[in-house]
Amino acid sequence: MSDWTQISGGVTAPKGYRAAGIIAGLKPSGLPDLALIVSEVDAIAAGVFTTSHVRAACVDYCREQLQAKPTARAILCNAGQANAATGLPGIIDAQESAQLIAQALNISSDLVLLASTGVIGQRIKMDALRSGIPRLVESASETGSAAAAKAIATTDLVTKSVALETMIGDRPVRIGGIAKGSGMIHPNMATMLAFVTCDAAVSPQLWQQMLSRAADQSFNQVTVDGDTSTNDSLIALANGQSRTPAITEMGAEAEKLEAMLTKVCTDLAKAIARDGEGATCLIEVRVTGASHNEAARRVARTIAGSSLVKSAIFGRDPNWGRIAGAAGRAGVPFNQEELQIRLGDLLLLKNGQPQAFDRQAASQYLKQQADASIGSPADPSTGNGATQSIDHPVVISVGVGTGSGHGMAWGCDLSYDYVKINAEYTT
Amino acid sequence: MSDWTQISGGVTAPKGYRAAGIIAGLKPSGLPDLALIVSEVDAIAAGVFTTSHVRAACVDYCREQLQAKPTARAILCNAGQANAATGLPGIIDAQESAQLIAQALNISSDLVLLASTGVIGQRIKMDALRSGIPRLVESASETGSAAAAKAIATTDLVTKSVALETMIGDRPVRIGGIAKGSGMIHPNMATMLAFVTCDAAVSPQLWQQMLSRAADQSFNQVTVDGDTSTNDSLIALANGQSRTPAITEMGAEAEKLEAMLTKVCTDLAKAIARDGEGATCLIEVRVTGASHNEAARRVARTIAGSSLVKSAIFGRDPNWGRIAGAAGRAGVPFNQEELQIRLGDLLLLKNGQPQAFDRQAASQYLKQQADASIGSPADPSTGNGATQSIDHPVVISVGVGTGSGHGMAWGCDLSYDYVKINAEYTT
Repeated sequence: MSDWTQISGGVTAPKGYRAAGIIAGLKPSGLPDLALIVSEVDAIAAGVFTTSHVRAACVDYCREQLQAKPTARAILCNAGQANAATGLPGIIDAQESAQLIAQALNISSDLVLLASTGVIGQRIKMDALRSGIPRLVESASETGSAAAAKAIATTDLVTKSVALETMIGDRPVRIGGIAKGSGMIHPNMATMLAFVTCDAAVSPQLWQQMLSRAADQSFNQVTVDGDTSTNDSLIALANGQSRTPAITEMGAEAEKLEAMLTKVCTDLAKAIARDGEGATCLIEVRVTGASHNEAARRVARTIAGSSLVKSAIFGRDPNWGRIAGAAGRAGVPFNQEELQIRLGDLLLLKNGQPQAFDRQAASQYLKQQADASIGSPADPSTGNGATQSIDHPVVISVGVGTGSGHGMAWGCDLSYDYVKINAEYTT
Repeated sequence: MSDWTQISGGVTAPKGYRAAGIIAGLKPSGLPDLALIVSEVDAIAAGVFTTSHVRAACVDYCREQLQAKPTARAILCNAGQANAATGLPGIIDAQESAQLIAQALNISSDLVLLASTGVIGQRIKMDALRSGIPRLVESASETGSAAAAKAIATTDLVTKSVALETMIGDRPVRIGGIAKGSGMIHPNMATMLAFVTCDAAVSPQLWQQMLSRAADQSFNQVTVDGDTSTNDSLIALANGQSRTPAITEMGAEAEKLEAMLTKVCTDLAKAIARDGEGATCLIEVRVTGASHNEAARRVARTIAGSSLVKSAIFGRDPNWGRIAGAAGRAGVPFNQEELQIRLGDLLLLKNGQPQAFDRQAASQYLKQQADASIGSPADPSTGNGATQSIDHPVVISVGVGTGSGHGMAWGCDLSYDYVKINAEYTT
C-alpha cells in the first residue's frame, strides 16, 4: 500500500492550490498570523472538529457550512485570538471574515471555511484582519505553503508540513498538509489545526469517510496533555485537478488514496506530539492482541497520555510498572497473565511477569532516541526554521492478548519545561 | 445531616477495634511497613477496589473473600512491595499472609482481608513478614491507629486519619478511617488505600451500598495524576459494638450513618489530594446545573484532572479559559451560553462570556489558599508527624446550566516537583 513518494510543497504540492501567510497584526508578537489556502476550482471538502461542548465560532461555522454543502474554495485561518467563548459577537466576526475573503477572491461566501487559534475569550482583531485580507489574497501563490504553515503556528517550535505523491492509473495524485499544535497551550494558545489538500477527484461522502477514518488513526491518537481544545479542526479539500478518474466507491484506488491520506495525517500528528510543550522526545505506543482495533487504540492512548509514563520517559527510566498500570486502567478488559511489554527491542514483561533485562541498555535507548529527534535550530542567516525528527520515536510495544486488534498512539514526555511553560504565564 | 463531632483515634476510635503498625523490614528505608486492624468480634465488611485490569494479588483475594462472605475480623496491610504483576507466586504469598495472621490471632483465615502497596512486580518479602507478624499482633492496641496510619504510608508526606461521632438513638456511634496515597507514585509506590472502621450494626448489603455511594462521592472524585493503580482498595468494617439497633434498611438512621461515612471518606480523599506529589495546594471543583449528579461529577473530575488547569493554579494564574476548555471536553453536553465560572468569590465567566475581574485579587486568592494549606513540618523532638490543612482549598465553581445535578471533585496543582519526583527515580 505504501507506494508513495515524499515530495516538497506542503498544501501547494497538489495541483490547483495556492497559499499565503502574512503578518496582519493579530498576534502581539508581530509574527505571521493570517493564512489562506485557495483551490482554483470548487473542491470537495470534509472536516473533523473538536468534540468539546465549548467551541469557537469558526467550528460551528464550518460544521454548518459543510452540512449544507460539502464544497469549498478557500480556508482562512487567523492566529492570535481563538474567537471561543465570545458569544454572538464572535459569530458575527466569523461571518464577516468569510464575506471579506469571499469578496476579495470573488467567490461565494459559502465556499469559505474558517479556523482560529489563540487566546480563548478574545475576539478576532477585525480591523487588522480587514486591512490584511487584500494583501493576503494578493500574496497567495503556488509556493505559499511554508508561509501559511508559519502563520497558523502559535507556540509551535517548528512548522509542520508534509506532501506525498502516488500514481493512480498513469497519473500522479498528490496530498499535502500543514498543521499546528503543541499542547493546549501557553497562554491558552489553544488548538490543533490541520489543513490537507488533495488533487484527486473523490465523491464527498467517500472523502469525509476517508478523512474521519484517517483522523481516528492519527490526530485522535495524539495526546500532549489530554486537553482537547475549543478550536481543534482538521479540514481536507479534494479538487480533482490531477485529472484522474473520480473515485466514488471503495476499491483498490480508493484504498491507495486513503492510505496516503492516513499517512499525511499520521505524519502531521506525530509532528504535533514531537513538538509537545517541553517535550524532549516522541513516544510511539504500539498495542497488539486486543479484541478489536478501537480497544487497542484506547490502550495505546491511555499509555501515551499517562503522566507517570511520560515523566518516567523524561527521566530515561524504563519503568514498565507504570506502563502496565496505565494499560490496566484503560477500560479495556484483558487477561493480565497475557500482558507483554517491550521498550524498543527489550522485553520487560512477558505473560504478566517481570523479565530480567539490561536496565542500562533500556535507559540508553531512551536517551539515544531523544537525542536523535532533536533536529536543528532555526537559522536566522538563511531564514530556515527549526526542525525536529519524527523518525526516532521511543517505541513502547504492548501485547494484551491473542486478538487481532491493533493500534498506535503518539505522545511526548513530561518535562520541567511543560510545567514552566504552563505555569509561568501570568495573565 | 451533619450533626457529628470530630474526635481523635482514627480507626481505633470506634468501639471494639485495635490496630498496630511496625517495622518488619519490608521497606528498604527501614520505616514502618506492616499494619494491622482487628475487630474484637466478626464485623460486616464491605470493599471497593481498583477497576484496573492489572491487579495486585490482594485485590483479587479480597474480592473473592467478600463475595463468599461479607464478614471480617482483620485487615493486614504491607508497604514496600505491591505484589502486583507477580503471577501465581504472588497469589500464594497473599494466601500465606492471611493464614499467618489468622493463626496469630486465632481466627479463621477467611476472616482476614489484605492490602499491599509498594513497587509493582515485586513479591512481598515473606521472611520479613513471617517474623514480623507475632510482634504486629502483640502490639495491636486501642491506641494503635496512628502507628497503623504510618505503616501503610509510602511517599506520603503526612499520615491521613479522621474519626467522627454521632448519636443514633441515645447512644454514640463512631466511624474512623486511615488512608494513604499521594499519586501513583515514586518509584511505582502505587496506590490509594483507605481503611474505615465503624461500631454501628448494619446489614451487609446496606453497608456495601453505603460504602459504594460514599466512594463515588469521595475517593472516585480525587485525581492526582489520573493514574488508577493496580492496588487501590477501600475496605470498611462495621462491628456493631456501639450496641445500637441494627440498621437494615434506608431511613433516618441509615441516612445519618451514610452521611457520616461519606464525610469520613471525603476527608480522607481530600487529604490524599492535598498530599499529591509535588502539590502546593488542594483544589476543590464544585459543579452545579447539570442534568444529573454523575454528569456534574464528571465535569468536576475533568477540570480537577486537567494538566493545564493544574499548572495554571501552580502559577497562581486565574486562567479561566483552561477551566472552560476542560469543562467542554468532559463528555457532558451543555449549552456554552450558560457556562459560569467562579474562582473563590470572583466571577470570571458568565453566560459563556468573559467578565471583567480583578486579576490581582484572583492571583492573590490562589496564593493565600496555598499558603493556608501548608500545615506544619514533622517535629523530630516530639515525634509528631507533618501536617497539611484540607480546610483551605482553591475553590473553582462551575455552572453548566439550570439542572439540579451537582457534584464535587478534588485535585492538586501540577508543580516542578511532580515531574522531579516522577522523573528522577532511576531504576
